[in-house]
Amino acid sequence: MTNTLRLIPLGGLGEIGKNMMLFEHGRDILIVDAGIMFPEHDMWGIDVVIPDFGYLRERAGDVRGIVVTHGHEDHIGALPYLLGEVVPLDTPIYATPLACGLIDARLSERLSERTDLTGRANLRRITAGQGFRVGPFEVEFLAITHSIPDGVGLCITTDVGRIIHTGDFKFDYTPVRGGGPGFSRLGQLGAQGVLALLSDSTGSERSGYTPSEQVIVPALDRIFREAPGRIVVATFASLLSRVQQVINAAHAHDRVVALAGYSMLKTVEIARELGHLDVPKGLLVELGEALRLPETRVAIVTTGSQGQPEAALARMAEGTHRQIEIKPGDTIVLSSTPIPGNEEEVARVINKLIARGAEVIYPPLAAVHVSGHASREEQKLMLALTRPRFLVPVHGELRHLHAHARLAQEMGIAKENIFLLENGAVLELTRDAAQIVEKIPNEDVFVAGSGVGEIGPAVMREREVLARDGFVLAMVPVSAATGEVTSKPELVSRGFVYLRESGDLMERAAERAWQALRVSSPRREQTIIERTQETLGKFFYEETRRKPMVVAVVTKV
Amino acid sequence: MTNTLRLIPLGGLGEIGKNMMLFEHGRDILIVDAGIMFPEHDMWGIDVVIPDFGYLRERAGDVRGIVVTHGHEDHIGALPYLLGEVVPLDTPIYATPLACGLIDARLSERLSERTDLTGRANLRRITAGQGFRVGPFEVEFLAITHSIPDGVGLCITTDVGRIIHTGDFKFDYTPVRGGGPGFSRLGQLGAQGVLALLSDSTGSERSGYTPSEQVIVPALDRIFREAPGRIVVATFASLLSRVQQVINAAHAHDRVVALAGYSMLKTVEIARELGHLDVPKGLLVELGEALRLPETRVAIVTTGSQGQPEAALARMAEGTHRQIEIKPGDTIVLSSTPIPGNEEEVARVINKLIARGAEVIYPPLAAVHVSGHASREEQKLMLALTRPRFLVPVHGELRHLHAHARLAQEMGIAKENIFLLENGAVLELTRDAAQIVEKIPNEDVFVAGSGVGEIGPAVMREREVLARDGFVLAMVPVSAATGEVTSKPELVSRGFVYLRESGDLMERAAERAWQALRVSSPRREQTIIERTQETLGKFFYEETRRKPMVVAVVTKV
Repeated sequence: MTNTLRLIPLGGLGEIGKNMMLFEHGRDILIVDAGIMFPEHDMWGIDVVIPDFGYLRERAGDVRGIVVTHGHEDHIGALPYLLGEVVPLDTPIYATPLACGLIDARLSERLSERTDLTGRANLRRITAGQGFRVGPFEVEFLAITHSIPDGVGLCITTDVGRIIHTGDFKFDYTPVRGGGPGFSRLGQLGAQGVLALLSDSTGSERSGYTPSEQVIVPALDRIFREAPGRIVVATFASLLSRVQQVINAAHAHDRVVALAGYSMLKTVEIARELGHLDVPKGLLVELGEALRLPETRVAIVTTGSQGQPEAALARMAEGTHRQIEIKPGDTIVLSSTPIPGNEEEVARVINKLIARGAEVIYPPLAAVHVSGHASREEQKLMLALTRPRFLVPVHGELRHLHAHARLAQEMGIAKENIFLLENGAVLELTRDAAQIVEKIPNEDVFVAGSGVGEIGPAVMREREVLARDGFVLAMVPVSAATGEVTSKPELVSRGFVYLRESGDLMERAAERAWQALRVSSPRREQTIIERTQETLGKFFYEETRRKPMVVAVVTKV
Repeated sequence: MTNTLRLIPLGGLGEIGKNMMLFEHGRDILIVDAGIMFPEHDMWGIDVVIPDFGYLRERAGDVRGIVVTHGHEDHIGALPYLLGEVVPLDTPIYATPLACGLIDARLSERLSERTDLTGRANLRRITAGQGFRVGPFEVEFLAITHSIPDGVGLCITTDVGRIIHTGDFKFDYTPVRGGGPGFSRLGQLGAQGVLALLSDSTGSERSGYTPSEQVIVPALDRIFREAPGRIVVATFASLLSRVQQVINAAHAHDRVVALAGYSMLKTVEIARELGHLDVPKGLLVELGEALRLPETRVAIVTTGSQGQPEAALARMAEGTHRQIEIKPGDTIVLSSTPIPGNEEEVARVINKLIARGAEVIYPPLAAVHVSGHASREEQKLMLALTRPRFLVPVHGELRHLHAHARLAQEMGIAKENIFLLENGAVLELTRDAAQIVEKIPNEDVFVAGSGVGEIGPAVMREREVLARDGFVLAMVPVSAATGEVTSKPELVSRGFVYLRESGDLMERAAERAWQALRVSSPRREQTIIERTQETLGKFFYEETRRKPMVVAVVTKV
């Protein structure tokens, strides 16, 4: 029998293979990444979305290991739902030192809640350039650059051939810390022969090259030189190179740096321990201490650059932050751009900060942020270096994969050698062929509170109705003796109308239902309920042009 | 007494003076525009947001007329809520012919629903360049260009001085139809002296110049030349110049054009009647007829470019459009960019169209859309032409006004001569001074169904809780004789958990409540209700880490 390798992207919200990718050789499975997605606006009450582990649950005994490309939530955030739940807690996890630190912090939080889980995670620290073997898979970590340090691409070799998985990447010749991308190694692998390239499609709608992180230096330098008071820089906690740049600018302009926001404190602590941040002695101080210094000596790095209502920056904007009150003279830098879907929230925070008198600087007003993902010319360079036989665009919605595919075709890759997968699709590779052979189930799995996968489409539809027009509950009194309705129903509503202003609407509704029930005097409970719901639904629509959820129940008297 | 002129911006959702601006001279009031805003994501169940008419309601007798700058919804959409409701139905409305046509259609729809309103609107057709008098206000319509034809700026002169209000504008030297902006007249007015400029701030975060509508011609031409089958172009119904461009491209490439979507049909009908569209004979056909022609002879112009779920394009993407089934070979052009907040919806539509095999073309992949608003260099040109003593940035959120103000300061306008107003702020102008003197009440007024202003913060908060975690209603049976709770409560829930998968959660919850009530055996109804709500809220949070709305009611048995 010819050996085959099966590639299966998994994950949520239409991002293909971003959260998880399975490599399957014979019966052996290697998992690449295990991340979460954040819910979209109409996913009422959902905290996070995780990949569908249904297939892995059946095949748990065949999982040889987990490889993690970098420490972002959309690549590591689902590990607590996977380890000890689907695969054994001690399944080996291969990751770079910084990713290991972040994974460890994540898992510790979870394990402290789960007293039933004993043992601990089995983390294997690997650095870029190192290789290791997991079952039939030879894995090599490839140096790339991204918006978190210590991220890698993967070269995964089996007897079927060599696969390159870029992870999230951009080509930054001059990263803030650490080495640049391993261009020559990528070229060497390309010369030796690459069966398939799995390449980051996130930036495939953006022409040209993504600028180096270094372009931010002059913008920050100018802000630090000119700011008349405190400087507050909001960015992603994981964007450690940006934190380093703020530290550098503060050092150059004689300011101390303080941190605000739990995830910023946590991530910086881990990064410092692992030597991923250079902090001159005495530069990093407690927030309380910083606030006692002259304002021109202070810079604060905070979470909340996506406008998240619970994060530190939004609380400063609302005036509810415990320690920091924004005022005229403050300069606030949003060193980020809104992730699609967050535009409204970010705009609100900016407006509120300006209303408090602060000077707010954000892209495109100044060059204070660059993307962490390759633009189109970099995607071309990746293709030109690795010269794959087959291209599998990954990481992105279908539209991004599609744009990536068109770009590859412009470079001469034949359309039939490019595979646009959906999550759950199984791409089977042999030494000289590739085809989609089947589709395993893949659904977005919603996590809400402590429940995983309990909230499905039915509950979501109910929430949508409730969110739009609230509900009216009708309690219909029915004689226990005769089964007949004895009087008009009692109505309770929430989220529908403001009762003080709705006059006698509820009174008239109850009368109308009572009339309808008296006319036909049904005795079957189900008929009473249906008649009541129908009558009230119609009445409210006529009166208000709205459609609250109407629920009738029978109460025995 | 020195004469004064008072300027009062009104409107919704933090866009300053976009929906409405009041000019007040002595007791006389001139209203400029009356538009709506569309709700943000967390404004549950709200259809539209209209300006706060509280002040106008008190002063209705002093309103001399309404001037409309152009026919977009955010400038005319609130007229049905103003005319016949707040000011007399026959209050004169001064607008360009196309705006009059669109206003008339809007008002007719409303008046057909309101049989109690007699009479009709008093529309006065004015063209760019024309002047007219309304009470103490001399008004002149100024030629500008925007993304709807027949838009104007305003020169409003009283004995206090000359005010220029740009309306929504860009400077397009080569518009698709009609004349260009009246540069020389603006310059002449600037030379004669302008007391204050109210200028569109929408594009103040965008550097450079907004391209002319003409840049779209080569992109459309290429698409029409290369498309192997049907072409579907989605754009705003009001973007008539874009519709004209599609008509031109179709004519050049021997295709007919059909329309899809109610507002597209309606707007094109009005525009044709008023001579705002040039349609070669036989080019525009019914959709049904077009679908019977060879696919290479067909172009369809449709609504839904913002991803609105109920619009034609989304229905094509979902496969629920009555007439059009998207398939491989179709080329779909999104001739628009997402309005902030709509990114998720637009992305979903694009992904679904691609999944159906269509080729989807959208910015930035091709130059198929340009903005209708001035970029920073055009805002500078407006300032340079009109040379105002005072600048009042309008149309935009605070951040846009702020960026506009900084730009003006760079051009040498003194900071104290620039007024950043909020909605409801009253700017009082004399011949040589300006100051903010007071603030009248201004709140976002929500329209939901047939209710105007009935939904306030309390109902919205209830909806937010319901949207997140649903509700549980507990009916506690109480003896009519003794006032004692007789048995465990009956629970009804919606939008909380999927009951089939929640096991005995509800059963245990009822038991817990019953226990708590038995221990203390309260007889006061309010105490029973509070005890039940508290016990259940705590129980559900412990069990699920979620917080459904818990409502308890007492039923007498």
